Amino acid sequence: MGIVVQNIERVAADILDRLATAGVATVHEAQGRKGMLASYMRPIYAGAQIAGSAVTISSPPGDNWMLHVAIEQLKNGDILVLAPTSPCDNGYFGDLLATSAVARGCKGLVIDAGVRDIRDLTAMGFPVWSKAISAQGTVKETVGSVNVPIVCAGAHIEAGDIIIADDDGVCVVKRTEAADVLAAAEKRLANEEAKRSRLAAGELGLDIYDMRPTLEKKGLRYV
Amino acid sequence: MGIVVQNIERVAADILDRLATAGVATVHEAQGRKGMLASYMRPIYAGAQIAGSAVTISSPPGDNWMLHVAIEQLKNGDILVLAPTSPCDNGYFGDLLATSAVARGCKGLVIDAGVRDIRDLTAMGFPVWSKAISAQGTVKETVGSVNVPIVCAGAHIEAGDIIIADDDGVCVVKRTEAADVLAAAEKRLANEEAKRSRLAAGELGLDIYDMRPTLEKKGLRYV
Amino acid sequence: MGIVVQNIERVAADILDRLATAGVATVHEAQGRKGMLASYMRPIYAGAQIAGSAVTISSPPGDNWMLHVAIEQLKNGDILVLAPTSPCDNGYFGDLLATSAVARGCKGLVIDAGVRDIRDLTAMGFPVWSKAISAQGTVKETVGSVNVPIVCAGAHIEAGDIIIADDDGVCVVKRTEAADVLAAAEKRLANEEAKRSRLAAGELGLDIYDMRPTLEKKGLRYV
Amino acid sequence: MGIVVQNIERVAADILDRLATAGVATVHEAQGRKGMLASYMRPIYAGAQIAGSAVTISSPPGDNWMLHVAIEQLKNGDILVLAPTSPCDNGYFGDLLATSAVARGCKGLVIDAGVRDIRDLTAMGFPVWSKAISAQGTVKETVGSVNVPIVCAGAHIEAGDIIIADDDGVCVVKRTEAADVLAAAEKRLANEEAKRSRLAAGELGLDIYDMRPTLEKKGLRYV
Amino acid sequence: MGIVVQNIERVAADILDRLATAGVATVHEAQGRKGMLASYMRPIYAGAQIAGSAVTISSPPGDNWMLHVAIEQLKNGDILVLAPTSPCDNGYFGDLLATSAVARGCKGLVIDAGVRDIRDLTAMGFPVWSKAISAQGTVKETVGSVNVPIVCAGAHIEAGDIIIADDDGVCVVKRTEAADVLAAAEKRLANEEAKRSRLAAGELGLDIYDMRPTLEKKGLRYV
Amino acid sequence: MGIVVQNIERVAADILDRLATAGVATVHEAQGRKGMLASYMRPIYAGAQIAGSAVTISSPPGDNWMLHVAIEQLKNGDILVLAPTSPCDNGYFGDLLATSAVARGCKGLVIDAGVRDIRDLTAMGFPVWSKAISAQGTVKETVGSVNVPIVCAGAHIEAGDIIIADDDGVCVVKRTEAADVLAAAEKRLANEEAKRSRLAAGELGLDIYDMRPTLEKKGLRYV
Repeated sequence: MGIVVQNIERVAADILDRLATAGVATVHEAQGRKGMLASYMRPIYAGAQIAGSAVTISSPPGDNWMLHVAIEQLKNGDILVLAPTSPCDNGYFGDLLATSAVARGCKGLVIDAGVRDIRDLTAMGFPVWSKAISAQGTVKETVGSVNVPIVCAGAHIEAGDIIIADDDGVCVVKRTEAADVLAAAEKRLANEEAKRSRLAAGELGLDIYDMRPTLEKKGLRYV
Repeated sequence: MGIVVQNIERVAADILDRLATAGVATVHEAQGRKGMLASYMRPIYAGAQIAGSAVTISSPPGDNWMLHVAIEQLKNGDILVLAPTSPCDNGYFGDLLATSAVARGCKGLVIDAGVRDIRDLTAMGFPVWSKAISAQGTVKETVGSVNVPIVCAGAHIEAGDIIIADDDGVCVVKRTEAADVLAAAEKRLANEEAKRSRLAAGELGLDIYDMRPTLEKKGLRYV
Repeated sequence: MGIVVQNIERVAADILDRLATAGVATVHEAQGRKGMLASYMRPIYAGAQIAGSAVTISSPPGDNWMLHVAIEQLKNGDILVLAPTSPCDNGYFGDLLATSAVARGCKGLVIDAGVRDIRDLTAMGFPVWSKAISAQGTVKETVGSVNVPIVCAGAHIEAGDIIIADDDGVCVVKRTEAADVLAAAEKRLANEEAKRSRLAAGELGLDIYDMRPTLEKKGLRYV
Repeated sequence: MGIVVQNIERVAADILDRLATAGVATVHEAQGRKGMLASYMRPIYAGAQIAGSAVTISSPPGDNWMLHVAIEQLKNGDILVLAPTSPCDNGYFGDLLATSAVARGCKGLVIDAGVRDIRDLTAMGFPVWSKAISAQGTVKETVGSVNVPIVCAGAHIEAGDIIIADDDGVCVVKRTEAADVLAAAEKRLANEEAKRSRLAAGELGLDIYDMRPTLEKKGLRYV
Repeated sequence: MGIVVQNIERVAADILDRLATAGVATVHEAQGRKGMLASYMRPIYAGAQIAGSAVTISSPPGDNWMLHVAIEQLKNGDILVLAPTSPCDNGYFGDLLATSAVARGCKGLVIDAGVRDIRDLTAMGFPVWSKAISAQGTVKETVGSVNVPIVCAGAHIEAGDIIIADDDGVCVVKRTEAADVLAAAEKRLANEEAKRSRLAAGELGLDIYDMRPTLEKKGLRYV
Repeated sequence: MGIVVQNIERVAADILDRLATAGVATVHEAQGRKGMLASYMRPIYAGAQIAGSAVTISSPPGDNWMLHVAIEQLKNGDILVLAPTSPCDNGYFGDLLATSAVARGCKGLVIDAGVRDIRDLTAMGFPVWSKAISAQGTVKETVGSVNVPIVCAGAHIEAGDIIIADDDGVCVVKRTEAADVLAAAEKRLANEEAKRSRLAAGELGLDIYDMRPTLEKKGLRYV
């Protein structure tokens, strides 16, 4: 009953790179504070910051068969995104699958389940954001689907949507909104730079954003 | 309905520095095994060890307005301590607010919610102990209070109480008990040094603390 | 009512060392995907990889007395394994106990509860896998048992069983199965090396493992 | 920035009633084991079994303003479905809102957050499936959206999709698949009746489903 | 190191009774949406609704000795409130302690830990709000304190504060604010009655509270 | 790789019945406060109280095939006990399997996973203690084992061990210790009756158990 959607649309590499540079927090704000995956999705090592097109995987609990199927669908710069069909923290993915994925141009993995071979993945520089780290193995008995819409860690993701991930977590941007969100994000970055200088000089947000009258009107009292 | 208490009493900087040196585990023991915040409060990077006076913030869920208000109340060496009025893991605080807080002399943040811009905060050396890391944004719509008593991660904290935080977690010491706790902590440190040498030489705690008779009386049997 | 079993059988050091080298994920697969402790058991620092004989401890919640008793039972190369009799995240173990354990030849600690003095333990290079990090102290009032069978983080462990722990978590191997599991693990490692090369060269798991016919039979459709 | 979609398509009442009768477990199987909301969604009282068209609500954490907006959009037989934009267990809904919803023909509420006035709601016979029960109040400060696609307790739901809820939890059926799923569910119910009689008479599933040869081929051994 | 405070002030029985009648949700709103204990505090059976003066207990994890001490301090109409000094779900309290507490006039128990003998307690009509139900036993080895300030399920409670508990959870009202909160609660109840009639007649909250202009100003769009 | 152990030893029905009457809390105390399963194991309806011999099942996550195999192994008065090999809350069991189990004399189910068809099971009077209620379905693809030792909800259980379950949770008694535990439990029940009368008459536990001198010696102070 599983299906594999073979041809998905992707966003241009240049847009992906600039979104990666902007980072999760900025992009998330730029698109109206939406698109964050749950905060339990944590990187296996600090410092990675990537953006890529989602190749989505829907897998049964404790069964990683579809990862092999998905790897064939990867194109350069893609990110694997796996959601089990019910909660599971098994280690679906390790250094052999990472070796294979890297050979196909994969930038990283986002998985609402477990991952293993942490030391090897770290040494390879293959970033993973996961719900758990676990060596508990999986089987290859039941088919799932590749490149269908999934809900991963509370976010709805379609194949080809853009995944942005860094130390702050993981955010999804709809493929069709990528250009607009990038423009808003870069504008935001420029704007923040100016504010940062004023704040560093000791000026207060209360004054820069002119909050005092509103706070008073809302009833804040100083005692 | 929010209030801001403007003048709070603080403990002398010398006491704070010596409490920071003693560290969380020792201070916690020295004050009778009380004052620990819940163990889910984790540092965003390893190695920071601080002590400072609490500037407390009570905020609605998903609303970080009061952080701007609280920053104005900071004095050199203070620590921001935020508790939402109901459980929330949103990212209330990031690098712009940290820049502003540092400009006012702030040593760090303890937050029973989420924080973001982890890479920037780490690069700045601004330590945070939080329940979550999340880029999920907040609004600025509802007032809260500053420098009122709060319950943060299971601990009751009043403005001016001393916050001690390191890799073991976060501990609060009542302002009025600071001198006594420091004395007990430093005595404890001296005492531990002697024990450490004996233990390192292979002597057993069973003998150093003379536990064998009590264990036998309580019924422990060797088989 | 507590008991201490004094003479337990252990596996030869050579087998332990080779199991440590194989690592948790490989050993776990080699013994038929069993023996993993729950994935919430995390190392206090990255990079440690050990194997040793379990000296087991059953302790009341919030009482670390039995750790002193257990340390006397340690032989060179052992690993302390503690399970509280009901869920507890208190910090049962810190740098003084670690100093004592190291003096008796202990390789590390696996604890389904909390640990403290993280900075010191890291500096000493004493690895711990725990459910929590917490400075919250314990008492020494109630006896427990040492070297009895325990359930630790969901796994049944008997004294002398082999504990293997690395960044992927913790796995237990029955003492009597050690030689067989090691043989299977080393065979597996050799086998993985060959696959890694083929995968790195871009060959697909779908082809290496000849999965395509089975997937088709199970109904996977490409669209 | 919020929007309210006013005209949504709905499934015929007859189909809804027959889906309610089939129940969650059967419908979920009939549509290929998909569509379940997370198992933490529990009814506030036992025995309710409903199906209706979803009027969806996306709300900020701790803000229930949009419920008033959504109630105006209700048609007879609808079910309110609320997802906060970040995790929150506040009591968004109580007896006054239920009174208003009932007056507009609402059959029940599914909320990935908290609910209150449990005793009144139970007395009214107004069923709710929620993540939490909490009297903790909310504000009305920030707009959200009504009848937009949401992710509620891990399931993607669009306005007009069918919600089925009973003591087993909550399941969503896509509006466009309703007729097919109903047919499959009713076929399944008929089929189950025959099996139930044979099982009640002591016949084994191993024989009814002819599992013995497959189990043997997969390696199951009797000892 | 434990202490027992013997004479605590209490609020008049008439005020307690009227607060019980108002119920948790109304009282919580009446005092400005504060004072709720965490939503994991659930009643062992539905339908109880009580208010009384808190006799507080601070206990070590897994040690219920102080309950015997606290029972001696009970006066007619009091409610026992227990918080362990670190998280614990042991069954601290069962039917024998309940028999003793009832004999001293106790109205119920609020415990941020476990309770047992559920069937007997239900038959006795002795209500309990707890974090867990567990038969796991406790010891009597370590002293704690009675009638000291505690943090219970996230709320700061002092001896003599008023505990209100019903199916919606548990709320604390400061002793000194009882009269004011009661007045506000009763006013609120009267006001709600009028609203309920209008809502039941089909009038919308949008109109009753005149929300439409504000929603429009905040940018809500109907499409 | 799965195995089914066909002949297991069981305890006499009379002992089981008397253990059921004693109940979980008493039996647990009588055997030295051990044997409790985790407190998240909750009954699907209140009031059931059973004891029986465990037929154990080790199942892969999301795969309920072994339940059919286990049902063939049931003898009159047995209790099915299922533990998944990794955490899973899927609904492994519903009314058809219950019909089959009842036809073979099964008294109930203890499952460290999910169950469904709650309304039917309740109507049948078939008691279940589970970690979750979930209609999320399972597959039948991978073999597990029956009547092997398992860890279920933190307790080690062997086939033929005695399971006791009521509203307080689930407790396991080793088969070989059944007679001794029963004797201790019945003695305990007789003893409790006398204490209950004295406590109901207003006598204090402090006096009945002569706790005052010990409390004073441990340092408890009345102020």
